[in-house]
Amino acid sequence: MMSKRRSVLTKKQDAYGRLVYDYFKGVRATEIVERDDGFIAPSGGPVTYFASYRAWPAHQRRAMSFIRGRVLDIGCGPGRVALYLQKRGHSVLAIDSSPLAIRTARLRGVHDARILPITKLSARVGAFDTIVLFGNNFGLFANVRRARWLLRRFAKMTSPSAVVVAEVLDPYDTQVAAHRRYHRRNRARGRMAGQSRIRVRYQDATTPWFDYLFVSRLELRRLLQGSGWRLAHTLDSNGPTYIAVLSKARAVEAAS
Amino acid sequence: MMSKRRSVLTKKQDAYGRLVYDYFKGVRATEIVERDDGFIAPSGGPVTYFASYRAWPAHQRRAMSFIRGRVLDIGCGPGRVALYLQKRGHSVLAIDSSPLAIRTARLRGVHDARILPITKLSARVGAFDTIVLFGNNFGLFANVRRARWLLRRFAKMTSPSAVVVAEVLDPYDTQVAAHRRYHRRNRARGRMAGQSRIRVRYQDATTPWFDYLFVSRLELRRLLQGSGWRLAHTLDSNGPTYIAVLSKARAVEAAS
Repeated sequence: MMSKRRSVLTKKQDAYGRLVYDYFKGVRATEIVERDDGFIAPSGGPVTYFASYRAWPAHQRRAMSFIRGRVLDIGCGPGRVALYLQKRGHSVLAIDSSPLAIRTARLRGVHDARILPITKLSARVGAFDTIVLFGNNFGLFANVRRARWLLRRFAKMTSPSAVVVAEVLDPYDTQVAAHRRYHRRNRARGRMAGQSRIRVRYQDATTPWFDYLFVSRLELRRLLQGSGWRLAHTLDSNGPTYIAVLSKARAVEAAS
Repeated sequence: MMSKRRSVLTKKQDAYGRLVYDYFKGVRATEIVERDDGFIAPSGGPVTYFASYRAWPAHQRRAMSFIRGRVLDIGCGPGRVALYLQKRGHSVLAIDSSPLAIRTARLRGVHDARILPITKLSARVGAFDTIVLFGNNFGLFANVRRARWLLRRFAKMTSPSAVVVAEVLDPYDTQVAAHRRYHRRNRARGRMAGQSRIRVRYQDATTPWFDYLFVSRLELRRLLQGSGWRLAHTLDSNGPTYIAVLSKARAVEAAS
């Protein structure tokens, strides 16, 4: 509990960071994600976390055209997005709750990378024109209540024409029977179907359990009500993920 | 406990079998092995479980020259060794505690594949000239006491000039700090350093915890005392595993 409230991961909890750091050092590391129903699988992570722009899937590359001005990269990991945007001339603040991910991001050349969980963000870190949540990091919103709370906070940390560019996973786009069972189980417990309680494991490191939120486009629209943001664009991928580009609801109202 | 005593895995427990069956059906499946200290990693398994003879590491190929007559293949998995030996004209009984591994072995053409845990073996299954434990399956002996008990039983199930050809992992051949800590922990608990309590996980299937035994060459020699077998040959690999060829201790005594 202590660790959960602090949110910054301890060394023993920083499974993700160790994985990322080891992979950076040349170790063929595999990230394992465990769900609270016992489902376990490799994430396929490290390769994508380090992919250079040319290796990104098309929908992620297309999403870059929506990015403007000063950028906040939330859940930056080893910094693939931050590095690309820096090179394109953006001022970027890259944050992650994983100390070793931040260490790796710095070693790879991210100028401003800080250990900071999403829940500790406030206007004190400055103002942004774009907030990026890539690699399914929309999931970091955890649940509807927290998503709305964080989005309202984001509204105060951003310029009037700001956008949030978030990669989202649609949980219903699956053939895996265990995933469908998990959705039903979640609903029976009054949770959103795609509210996955997971933890990351790597060797002998294990993160605390945390909720990672997967939503369909329809669920996303509902979730945005009262958040201060509206769904301006979606970019489809070849798989179950999509990019949501959010703009400020107020700006729309003013325009109409 | 029930399941442990029965030893044959239920559907929910047959993580290994599901993995093997899915891989056979074309799914890119990853086997995950969890140890009771929390260490977790992919086994790298399925590819090697299905490897054709030409893809085997050299020490495994060389070990085939020790195989004679009727063969018992223990922990056969999807049957790579059984299939090779069948083709070479051997009569092979292939056994595994995993129902889906046996199903897969049969689908792949293993003539005589049976669901049978190592502990249920007895002279009733017939007499053999060679017993094979490949892919680190020496580990199935679990601990010294069980190893000696099983080896004495093997002696009664085999011809006078029979051999046991077992692949063994030397636990001390590692640079991983967590493994060394685990060895110390085991010793402090009166267990052999390499007596690893593990379980196999695949998606939402999890085997019961079981002991899988790793021993150095020296420990192996000690373990064989009073087992009815002696270490006749070892074949080194490029890694931490080696092949132990055991022949009957009595035959040697008679010869000397």
